[in-house]
Amino acid sequence: MTDFSKTKAQFHIPEGMIYLDGNSLGPLPKAAPAKMQAVMQDEWGEMLITGWNKAGWMAQPTRVGDRIARLIGAEEGHVVMGDTLSIKVYQALASALEMRPERKVILSDSGNFPSDLYMAEGLIKSLGQGHELRVVAPEEVEANITEEVAVTLITEVDYRTGRLHDMAALTEKAHAAGALTVWDLAHTAGATDVRVAEAGADFAVGCTYKYLNGGPGAPAFIYVAPRHADVARPALSGWLGHEAPFAFDQSYRPGAGIERMRVGTPPVLALAALEAALDIWDMTDMAAIRAKSKELTTLFAEEVSRRCPMLTLASPEDPEARGSQVSFIFEEGYAAMQALIARGVIGDFRAPEIMRFGFTPLYIDAADVMRAVEIIDEVMTGKLWDREDYKARAAVT
Amino acid sequence: MTDFSKTKAQFHIPEGMIYLDGNSLGPLPKAAPAKMQAVMQDEWGEMLITGWNKAGWMAQPTRVGDRIARLIGAEEGHVVMGDTLSIKVYQALASALEMRPERKVILSDSGNFPSDLYMAEGLIKSLGQGHELRVVAPEEVEANITEEVAVTLITEVDYRTGRLHDMAALTEKAHAAGALTVWDLAHTAGATDVRVAEAGADFAVGCTYKYLNGGPGAPAFIYVAPRHADVARPALSGWLGHEAPFAFDQSYRPGAGIERMRVGTPPVLALAALEAALDIWDMTDMAAIRAKSKELTTLFAEEVSRRCPMLTLASPEDPEARGSQVSFIFEEGYAAMQALIARGVIGDFRAPEIMRFGFTPLYIDAADVMRAVEIIDEVMTGKLWDREDYKARAAVT
Repeated sequence: MTDFSKTKAQFHIPEGMIYLDGNSLGPLPKAAPAKMQAVMQDEWGEMLITGWNKAGWMAQPTRVGDRIARLIGAEEGHVVMGDTLSIKVYQALASALEMRPERKVILSDSGNFPSDLYMAEGLIKSLGQGHELRVVAPEEVEANITEEVAVTLITEVDYRTGRLHDMAALTEKAHAAGALTVWDLAHTAGATDVRVAEAGADFAVGCTYKYLNGGPGAPAFIYVAPRHADVARPALSGWLGHEAPFAFDQSYRPGAGIERMRVGTPPVLALAALEAALDIWDMTDMAAIRAKSKELTTLFAEEVSRRCPMLTLASPEDPEARGSQVSFIFEEGYAAMQALIARGVIGDFRAPEIMRFGFTPLYIDAADVMRAVEIIDEVMTGKLWDREDYKARAAVT
Repeated sequence: MTDFSKTKAQFHIPEGMIYLDGNSLGPLPKAAPAKMQAVMQDEWGEMLITGWNKAGWMAQPTRVGDRIARLIGAEEGHVVMGDTLSIKVYQALASALEMRPERKVILSDSGNFPSDLYMAEGLIKSLGQGHELRVVAPEEVEANITEEVAVTLITEVDYRTGRLHDMAALTEKAHAAGALTVWDLAHTAGATDVRVAEAGADFAVGCTYKYLNGGPGAPAFIYVAPRHADVARPALSGWLGHEAPFAFDQSYRPGAGIERMRVGTPPVLALAALEAALDIWDMTDMAAIRAKSKELTTLFAEEVSRRCPMLTLASPEDPEARGSQVSFIFEEGYAAMQALIARGVIGDFRAPEIMRFGFTPLYIDAADVMRAVEIIDEVMTGKLWDREDYKARAAVT
């Protein structure tokens, strides 16, 4: 049993704020600043160059990767940290395409995060080999997994609606058609009880600044299934993915397994902040998080739907079919969200008319949900937003 | 006139240490921990998601890029931060190759840092379009710039010997042959008075954890000449390089100028540490740094050569022809370096037999150099290293 009051106490949440935007940027773990100071002063400051060995910086990407592995149901030793999620998408996709040279279709869906589609587009143009990015509606993915498909590139949870794909079923379908799968876990890692190994995923990538609370711009991760780990050719063949980085050979030889997915020098300071955030995960497990998350999102979706009929639920009603967020469609959503934020309920807005609210059991409890519902009711029923804001379409990430 | 005693006071150097390895990892700026605390607590902690606008995180990569631009002689608005140097090499190279579709040769030299060669190798394999990575001896680069060459990929200062290429001359030669240039400034930025705009460089990339003191794994930068900035197609087409990232369009449209070289979410915390380091550069300029650097490396090279005849100078004798480091060849160099490190003189070793010493006027003065010379003399003349260490070939980065 997880004691969520204890995990909640690990976070700094500003006084009076109900933070329902952890699906965009997680809050500050109270221990992170001290951890960062220690790494900066005791390691960088005192050890300087010897920190690479003495402080274990060189092994940090796989050491942290193993902690992520536990949260996404990956085998130990098969996740490594580094770069940004967009780079990791490119890396996984490039490797996967080479493993299916006779096929030319990358299958994705319109619920995917745009950067994934952009990176695929960029890769296809660079390759110049006649690949096609085929983007279908989320509900049509399964039917479109044909023998033309080299690889599926799917984000498990839709960043706007929270709709959850069935990873195991789609992966099975892909494998039956001879295709590979790249799963983007941006809205999954730390949010749902994802099990990449059980689902048979070939590649998985994700970021750590949302539900994992690693801080703004925290590093990404990549998982490669053990059966591919020594086969996949790294397109981004940097020196730290070399079999012997410090031999300074002139030719590249990929390192063993997941090591080859390392590229450049690891972001030591950023990973230190993430390590402090991951300590909190030692107090719980994904099964407990997922159970609590479903309770919270259900309570929120039901209460808001009941009290605010002008809001149309954009997320699946069935908690099993959604991630850890609840979204509503509302034409004046941008303005309404500004009014909520001014009253301490922090969600966000995604064009053209989605109001998004994320729920993280680590620091959000049922009392927070009910307080948020009261404020939303007040704002929506009282039409308390600024009409001048209506139609404004600026947005924060 | 720069007061170098004032810049020196800005760094934390452990008691009794003479740190001659800033060409690998720069030391901790004293102001960096407090800056990091402020960003973590006042920005991430208090502003949370609104930090992207309120704290200026979204503009941070170009804001910091402009400060780097000043140090490398680039035009304002044409440098952006992000990713690692290896990724930036790939990005520049991929764009350059597309600008010379009829040419198939990437010309580099054996003095280049291996990761640059590896990234080129990986890109060539991915493209599958018959490109060739042609690696010649450093002194043969010029003669090999032919009309076959699409792009030269040259690190200005050799990481082992400190030998400095003539950027302006090689760029002129490349342009005369119709080729483009990608310059790697890893050992140049903050070390020599490089002027990418004056030299006519097409692309330049570099890291910030060496002479720029941004901390272990600090982010990289990329420069694209204004004449190419709206032409170069970004192969790594991530959402933050999109013309309108928050429109969440399904198709990629490159942003204006250098913005298109952004890829994923910026590493806010890592960039904060770098910003603290860059404040120190406001106290000086590259002309002053370069003049002082030449004094220090000359003093060191002459004194060590005179006192320790068993050490063979591996760096050019002419200070104009080398960067800000001095290297010696010594068969038992690994063991000898361990003995120096044990006595507080921190240099490093590069296989098979190079002892490297870096000099950074920001925090190294002539008195430090002379103290280091005394200790080196003592160790070398007295043969004070552990013979058991001889032949050991482990190395730190």
